[in-house]
Amino acid sequence: MIERYTRPEMGAIWTDEARMEAWRKVEVAACEAMDGPTEEDLVAIRAATFTVEAVKEREKITDHDVAAFVDELAASAGPSGRWIHYGLTSSDVLDTALALQLKAAGEIILTGARAYADALADRAREHVHTVCVGRTHGVHAEPTTFGIKLAGYAMEARRNVERLERAFAQAAVGAISGAVGTYAATSPDFERGILEGLGIAGEPVSTQVVPRDRHAEVLQAIAIAGAGMERFATEIRHLQRTEVREVEEPFRAGKQKGSSAMPHKRNPITTERITGLARVLRGYSQAGLENVALWHERDISHSGAERVILPDATITLDYMHGLALRMATGMVVHTDRMRENIDLTYGALFSQRILLALVAKGLQRDDAYRIVQESAQEAWDSRTPLRELLEREELGLDLDEIFDLGHYTRYADEIVGRLGG
Amino acid sequence: MIERYTRPEMGAIWTDEARMEAWRKVEVAACEAMDGPTEEDLVAIRAATFTVEAVKEREKITDHDVAAFVDELAASAGPSGRWIHYGLTSSDVLDTALALQLKAAGEIILTGARAYADALADRAREHVHTVCVGRTHGVHAEPTTFGIKLAGYAMEARRNVERLERAFAQAAVGAISGAVGTYAATSPDFERGILEGLGIAGEPVSTQVVPRDRHAEVLQAIAIAGAGMERFATEIRHLQRTEVREVEEPFRAGKQKGSSAMPHKRNPITTERITGLARVLRGYSQAGLENVALWHERDISHSGAERVILPDATITLDYMHGLALRMATGMVVHTDRMRENIDLTYGALFSQRILLALVAKGLQRDDAYRIVQESAQEAWDSRTPLRELLEREELGLDLDEIFDLGHYTRYADEIVGRLGG
Amino acid sequence: MIERYTRPEMGAIWTDEARMEAWRKVEVAACEAMDGPTEEDLVAIRAATFTVEAVKEREKITDHDVAAFVDELAASAGPSGRWIHYGLTSSDVLDTALALQLKAAGEIILTGARAYADALADRAREHVHTVCVGRTHGVHAEPTTFGIKLAGYAMEARRNVERLERAFAQAAVGAISGAVGTYAATSPDFERGILEGLGIAGEPVSTQVVPRDRHAEVLQAIAIAGAGMERFATEIRHLQRTEVREVEEPFRAGKQKGSSAMPHKRNPITTERITGLARVLRGYSQAGLENVALWHERDISHSGAERVILPDATITLDYMHGLALRMATGMVVHTDRMRENIDLTYGALFSQRILLALVAKGLQRDDAYRIVQESAQEAWDSRTPLRELLEREELGLDLDEIFDLGHYTRYADEIVGRLGG
Amino acid sequence: MIERYTRPEMGAIWTDEARMEAWRKVEVAACEAMDGPTEEDLVAIRAATFTVEAVKEREKITDHDVAAFVDELAASAGPSGRWIHYGLTSSDVLDTALALQLKAAGEIILTGARAYADALADRAREHVHTVCVGRTHGVHAEPTTFGIKLAGYAMEARRNVERLERAFAQAAVGAISGAVGTYAATSPDFERGILEGLGIAGEPVSTQVVPRDRHAEVLQAIAIAGAGMERFATEIRHLQRTEVREVEEPFRAGKQKGSSAMPHKRNPITTERITGLARVLRGYSQAGLENVALWHERDISHSGAERVILPDATITLDYMHGLALRMATGMVVHTDRMRENIDLTYGALFSQRILLALVAKGLQRDDAYRIVQESAQEAWDSRTPLRELLEREELGLDLDEIFDLGHYTRYADEIVGRLGG
Repeated sequence: MIERYTRPEMGAIWTDEARMEAWRKVEVAACEAMDGPTEEDLVAIRAATFTVEAVKEREKITDHDVAAFVDELAASAGPSGRWIHYGLTSSDVLDTALALQLKAAGEIILTGARAYADALADRAREHVHTVCVGRTHGVHAEPTTFGIKLAGYAMEARRNVERLERAFAQAAVGAISGAVGTYAATSPDFERGILEGLGIAGEPVSTQVVPRDRHAEVLQAIAIAGAGMERFATEIRHLQRTEVREVEEPFRAGKQKGSSAMPHKRNPITTERITGLARVLRGYSQAGLENVALWHERDISHSGAERVILPDATITLDYMHGLALRMATGMVVHTDRMRENIDLTYGALFSQRILLALVAKGLQRDDAYRIVQESAQEAWDSRTPLRELLEREELGLDLDEIFDLGHYTRYADEIVGRLGG
Repeated sequence: MIERYTRPEMGAIWTDEARMEAWRKVEVAACEAMDGPTEEDLVAIRAATFTVEAVKEREKITDHDVAAFVDELAASAGPSGRWIHYGLTSSDVLDTALALQLKAAGEIILTGARAYADALADRAREHVHTVCVGRTHGVHAEPTTFGIKLAGYAMEARRNVERLERAFAQAAVGAISGAVGTYAATSPDFERGILEGLGIAGEPVSTQVVPRDRHAEVLQAIAIAGAGMERFATEIRHLQRTEVREVEEPFRAGKQKGSSAMPHKRNPITTERITGLARVLRGYSQAGLENVALWHERDISHSGAERVILPDATITLDYMHGLALRMATGMVVHTDRMRENIDLTYGALFSQRILLALVAKGLQRDDAYRIVQESAQEAWDSRTPLRELLEREELGLDLDEIFDLGHYTRYADEIVGRLGG
Repeated sequence: MIERYTRPEMGAIWTDEARMEAWRKVEVAACEAMDGPTEEDLVAIRAATFTVEAVKEREKITDHDVAAFVDELAASAGPSGRWIHYGLTSSDVLDTALALQLKAAGEIILTGARAYADALADRAREHVHTVCVGRTHGVHAEPTTFGIKLAGYAMEARRNVERLERAFAQAAVGAISGAVGTYAATSPDFERGILEGLGIAGEPVSTQVVPRDRHAEVLQAIAIAGAGMERFATEIRHLQRTEVREVEEPFRAGKQKGSSAMPHKRNPITTERITGLARVLRGYSQAGLENVALWHERDISHSGAERVILPDATITLDYMHGLALRMATGMVVHTDRMRENIDLTYGALFSQRILLALVAKGLQRDDAYRIVQESAQEAWDSRTPLRELLEREELGLDLDEIFDLGHYTRYADEIVGRLGG
Repeated sequence: MIERYTRPEMGAIWTDEARMEAWRKVEVAACEAMDGPTEEDLVAIRAATFTVEAVKEREKITDHDVAAFVDELAASAGPSGRWIHYGLTSSDVLDTALALQLKAAGEIILTGARAYADALADRAREHVHTVCVGRTHGVHAEPTTFGIKLAGYAMEARRNVERLERAFAQAAVGAISGAVGTYAATSPDFERGILEGLGIAGEPVSTQVVPRDRHAEVLQAIAIAGAGMERFATEIRHLQRTEVREVEEPFRAGKQKGSSAMPHKRNPITTERITGLARVLRGYSQAGLENVALWHERDISHSGAERVILPDATITLDYMHGLALRMATGMVVHTDRMRENIDLTYGALFSQRILLALVAKGLQRDDAYRIVQESAQEAWDSRTPLRELLEREELGLDLDEIFDLGHYTRYADEIVGRLGG
């Protein structure tokens, strides 16, 4: 992933250095769980080091990265080095190390996911009574509160926290089961020993590798979490439209430039970036699904793809969490504009209440519908308050009761309260 | 979905008739939970009927399917019909009804998913000791048993059962919260009453609709389950290759035609079909993800997509479950061919055991590697048993011990036993 | 595809009947190009018939659809029937017939694509001078004309006409090259004879099948054409927003119901449907790409997928063309609202012109930028005409010249003129 | 993209340095086409420099990369710098510069695509008469030649050359049309002047940006080209299977390690990598399609996605071209194994020839089919040459004629000759 979208903590998990360090941990844990090495051997093995450069140099000969790494680490350990990788196959190391990396990545991801969900919940509570218009199809529907809106995003963010938790948990699974998953050179006990030491669970039945449906689930959870932020981002983008202007992204007045050509502009560029990156995450998840059907005890087609998409997907989601958190906490809410926009349709958005009042008075639904449809659209088109139009028609309705905003907000506390806290 | 891939039970869930019947259930349940209607009204409402044809005819006028349906149902109920849809918005009905349909679809899906997983587990137990070669990169690696292979597919199938259970459970969620999720015309109690009657949970914070991350999760779980069957299908396709011929799809000798031109052919067409349909499921899941970011309290862009992809995805997965179950139970296993193929590399696939024996005798790993690499590849290329070559070299190895297949199978019972049962 | 989204003409191409009729054409053309059959045989062969039901019944025995079809057609032809399919393999028939179907589908698609492009061009010319605001990031940028907007969509629609033409042309390719593409039982001349008779080109080097990159290109062209209509649809959806209301989808006043609950609503449901279906098309194109890498001289995994996605993709695109054409021709343009919205930012959208005037007077760009940024945002925020603010500041600018809308529209004729016609 | 998959020449196109250098070229070309600057100004402007570091530092203030760049470049040019970016909007620079980068990337891509196609054609000619078995469904079908196989891949590679040429050509399009595509601050002549100087075409009707269907087409062409290489890679992977072993990837004997645990292994890792990366390309193309439907005169959601996927997709395809070329030229063809495998079915793969001979003698096709089906499957299952079985049955067939391999290869020269050259 490009530097611009890489936050340092997550980036650090996916460097060559970090990957090989994870390999080293697995190799050392394996030696410790082995019968062969003496205590002296273990001292040498634990002290063995490698450099990424040397491994890469060696790989030019072996054309095999783990083999190159083992050669280097073993050489560094001296004669004791012969125990390194003893009885293991590369995938034992690779997939168990990948589980360690995914576990670490998952922790960062979840911190970000929770912070974003919490921020939304906080803002929801803050705006529980901030009246604004609800829109369906982009058209004014009925009033709601901004807190109810945000509570919906917060709830979705929480569902995504759960999906991510579950996905990363089920992917933090290693396997030290040998060339085709039979423990031919080792034993299930040996595997248990290593994995317990490393703090991860074991794959119940592996092939040479941990099956790739687990990694696909991670990429799916990432994509759906990205889509959740995209939904929130799309809301902000809409609310920042010139004609709407109810919410704006934070903008550093006097410094930031919204457009190089048009100095008046303040654009929702951060939420647009979230939107664009959500698309990229969907592509990664697609590749992850195609990685599932490996051949027999595995081919290595998944590997090239994963070298790209696992770092890129986790880094991107982490970056998006940062952006979305900034938006959730920093967005500027123009409650005055929200109130103003309520009146844009000249009362037409009270149409359901009139319809229901007419039905309650005994009209057939379809007849009532046509009456209200005509009046409401006339009000809106002619910019005449609907209430005035209705007064003229003498329908015997209690207009004070009908045009009372309180009806739309009376459950706001209850709804937002479902967030708990 | 085309008739050819539609099993009747699942197909019945997605007919126009069934969809409207689900709407009817929701409308009736709503009337029952309402304050307005008298007992007499309810009798009329419960007795009200509709025909798909009449609704479609009416829709030509309203350009709105639920409005057309409500008009028809209300007309059928006579004057009591005015209570039908009272205080509801279309999406209350649509999404709650969709939850009912998804719940029903999920039950069929899960029956199929479990039957497939169980069949694999049964065959795994049957073949726990059937020795065959394990392959990585399509190249012989080390011996394993066919039971271990199948246990891996069974475990993946079980993970997919869990994913599908979870996904359908979280999607069986209704909402009767009104035009923008505020219960403006009704109340949370009203919603609770209806949903309890229908046996589904309620959305904690809805917009006009149930948020689409839930449906996206369903489509993701379907896609990953499809990829799991694709992996199994790919295994069978490989094992049925002319050169391998260890497993064959069931073939009705004397009746079925493998090829219209080449009478000798028996082709793995069913597993190929599973493979192809898994691709289609991935496409649906992609569209499902794009449906998440609806505008504001919702636009209706998801609807057109869902009319196609929710039926098509569930019908396709259900059909694939049928195919995969047939393959799992009916595949013909040629244990004799499996045993023969073990010898194809002239013993080269014992190479790791020789490598480890040499390292255990004190050689450096890399030196040992080069010795074994050379001998093993010579054995294979020259078609000379590797054991003969090693005998000549007098390396002081216990060749009986090394060339013992038992090493590869000694944990087969334990591994397959992890399936339980 | 569901009936709701199937236009009859395109639907007719993809029925079982139509598919088998295409097979029949290929089989008959093959007999005519063959040496063996006598004139009498050909008479019988040309007169041979089939029914879909009988073929399906027969398929229950053969488990092979073409074999079943050949059995039926041959039986109908009597003894001459033995020449039917002589020397052919199923894929010769299937893929050549598919080329005929795709060719026919392409013609309908292209008629629709051209009509949509033409309608946009017509509306562009109609509105060449209709001033409206241009928006970037959803925020007012500078004035433009609605004709310029539409000309952009028209140009994209034309690029998609070209892509579709090219894609369908390169897919209208048959192959009668036998079991593995070697003409083992026939000859290149035989193939040429048949394909010329059928009016399609031949695959230069086929396997058993026409390579699937061709079909993938068709699905890609369909997806990108769908995305083009989605872009136009998104524009309309935005312009129909309550706060904007510059354009509305056609709405049948007094009949159509925008919402079952809120009689005041007129929603952009058609453009939303276009948006949703564009997502589905993307999924089909993804499956099409995965169909490319068939095994060896082919496996049949593509077939199950194509049975679904080729009809569904062409039918969906055709349906979308119908919707988009209706929108392009029928959309209601509120030129008065367009003019009103120009003033929403109190002149801030003239900011670039002021910036350039200041730079031309000798200010450094960054200094000028900060001056204009401050004034423009103050104008907008305080709802004070920017011109007034500038008058107070005595910057020595020609404000008449700056605040002249004519600058934004002076090239409208030239730009829209690029459409020709 | 990770360094491992980045070839230096392509990588150099997408550095920050290179991107800004492309911006600089556009800015300078614009100043040259402008009326305002004096010759002295132009000298200063052409001499102006920037550093990536300084621009990034400045971006921390502006939060806008082009604005930061313009500030830096203008400062470097002294007072003449005020002409830099005069009348331009950022997207004029960004998209025109992107066109330059895509043009350069396209040239590298096409060199690679052609080299790969040529290599396949060369190997096809080399093996025009190398008999091998053709396989459908992974099952032996009929003999063919390896040259015919390769000619098919070569033809597909050429189609992808054409698709890539076309896609990059249509994307090498710039626009200097201002904030919303109206040339408000400039003129069409000004645009023409700049673009001619830069050697690229102009967008007929742009918004603020070049429409994104163009970039989507590039990403689609990349994905389909990747799928083409995946098909070839899959062929090699199959042919290198232990049981088949007709072709092997180049392997450096005595140095390369196929497996860290199993010294006997030589694995098709390069073709597997091609396979995996093809999946990643499909994901990028999906994101590209979603970038098409930008809002109004554009939002900037495409930008974040494109920063990632345009470099990543072109770099990955370029890398795959390198791998595929190495495979096409370096693959080791075991003609002896090909000949041996022909006999694996004991003559069953001649079944069509027997079928046709029986039909030609007057049998009904279905009767003949059943006779041959039984014999052929018996031959194969019992490992008895089919010819022997037929001799016993005294069907009056000319078995020398039937079991003549020459029938399958007689058009090999003609077919491979279609490659020309």
